[in-house]
Amino acid sequence: MSDITIRPKLEVCLSPALLHLYDVSHTIVVIIDIFRATSTIAAALDNGAKAIMPVATVEECLQKGKEIYNSITAGERDGHIAPGLQHGNSPLEYTKDFIQGKILILTTTNGTRLLHMVNRPHVTIITGSFLNLSAVCSFLLAQNQNVLLACASWKDRFNLEDSLFAGAVAEKIAHAFSISCDSTHAVMHLHKASEGKYLEFLKNSTHYARLSAYGLWEDMNYCTTPDTHPVVPILKGEYLVI
Amino acid sequence: MSDITIRPKLEVCLSPALLHLYDVSHTIVVIIDIFRATSTIAAALDNGAKAIMPVATVEECLQKGKEIYNSITAGERDGHIAPGLQHGNSPLEYTKDFIQGKILILTTTNGTRLLHMVNRPHVTIITGSFLNLSAVCSFLLAQNQNVLLACASWKDRFNLEDSLFAGAVAEKIAHAFSISCDSTHAVMHLHKASEGKYLEFLKNSTHYARLSAYGLWEDMNYCTTPDTHPVVPILKGEYLVI
Repeated sequence: MSDITIRPKLEVCLSPALLHLYDVSHTIVVIIDIFRATSTIAAALDNGAKAIMPVATVEECLQKGKEIYNSITAGERDGHIAPGLQHGNSPLEYTKDFIQGKILILTTTNGTRLLHMVNRPHVTIITGSFLNLSAVCSFLLAQNQNVLLACASWKDRFNLEDSLFAGAVAEKIAHAFSISCDSTHAVMHLHKASEGKYLEFLKNSTHYARLSAYGLWEDMNYCTTPDTHPVVPILKGEYLVI
Repeated sequence: MSDITIRPKLEVCLSPALLHLYDVSHTIVVIIDIFRATSTIAAALDNGAKAIMPVATVEECLQKGKEIYNSITAGERDGHIAPGLQHGNSPLEYTKDFIQGKILILTTTNGTRLLHMVNRPHVTIITGSFLNLSAVCSFLLAQNQNVLLACASWKDRFNLEDSLFAGAVAEKIAHAFSISCDSTHAVMHLHKASEGKYLEFLKNSTHYARLSAYGLWEDMNYCTTPDTHPVVPILKGEYLVI
């Protein structure tokens, strides 16, 4: 018997502007938008949303909201509910009472854009956030497939919160993968540097400053708490489901 | 008297593919290509090279070599001296005896490409490496201008060695700058994680594996030793000079 095991690859893409450097075919891509799209997705699905449709624009969100029965339109632009939409991009809005059985049509600036960039044949797309960290890791360990952790970033700029989460995942699953990717090592260093105090670690990040200006500390605290919503949202056709 | 001091900005660009996100006008851009273009540039100029002309292609390198008196053509492709050129991309090749008084025409895959991408009006371009770390920091502190630390990376992929050096610079000059850039915080974390043991830190990087395959451990050791060549190469017209 041979000792050689061919392990699948684990890579990290730090910005959508670098996505073209990665071959995502036959790969599980984890979309990461900690503040706050992929946190909201985990919360809404765990709290009973039937499905989530990520859409690119406010116009498309409005249109789909009219077409789809029992749906809610949601999305923010510059920290406010976008004109014409009903709800925002906070995981705290999507309680069981409110979201159960409904379809959420969601548009966000960075996360949904990246998701659509990656959506092509032979790619499995899931979404990751601290809220479903362990569930995502268990899923990835079970699949034995190449993995790309894809940070939504902020208008293509590297951000600390998405890369910190990528580091949290990488640290938990690295043992089962082959790593020949400097970004993966870098995010693991970042995660180690945080010592698990995620919000504390993010206090000098640009997104912390941006969301603080809107008074969204409770949101940030919620979004950096691991494993509150242990689900694995996966894209099936146009919908994220669990 | 007011306590308010308007500090210049310090930013880090992790890959040439992200360069369009930064406004480099009236900015000092530090080109970073640790393995090995900017290390070679510091060594050759400190050892007496009259000037260095960074060029994009092997063809251009050959042509300029014919035109310019007392010049040397140098450059590698895939770890070997490019066909037709005279010398490689190792700082160890450019001793005083050999390079003094000569003009080095240099072509490299990543570093010179980035330098040409950045070269436009109202931009000051210098090159940085561990070999001239403190000299670069002193220069930046003296200018009171916006700074962009620009990593050459590897074919647009984030790399550990360039970002580690960016972190070393950022840590030394952060006190005099305003930082609203997550990449800058990230590279400072990386630098801290290295505990100053640079080569050790880079042992799981992709470039370490690549250069090890060519037996270039001595080069890597040399390129990660701080302050051996305390010069500030600056672009004047087509030439890097000190």
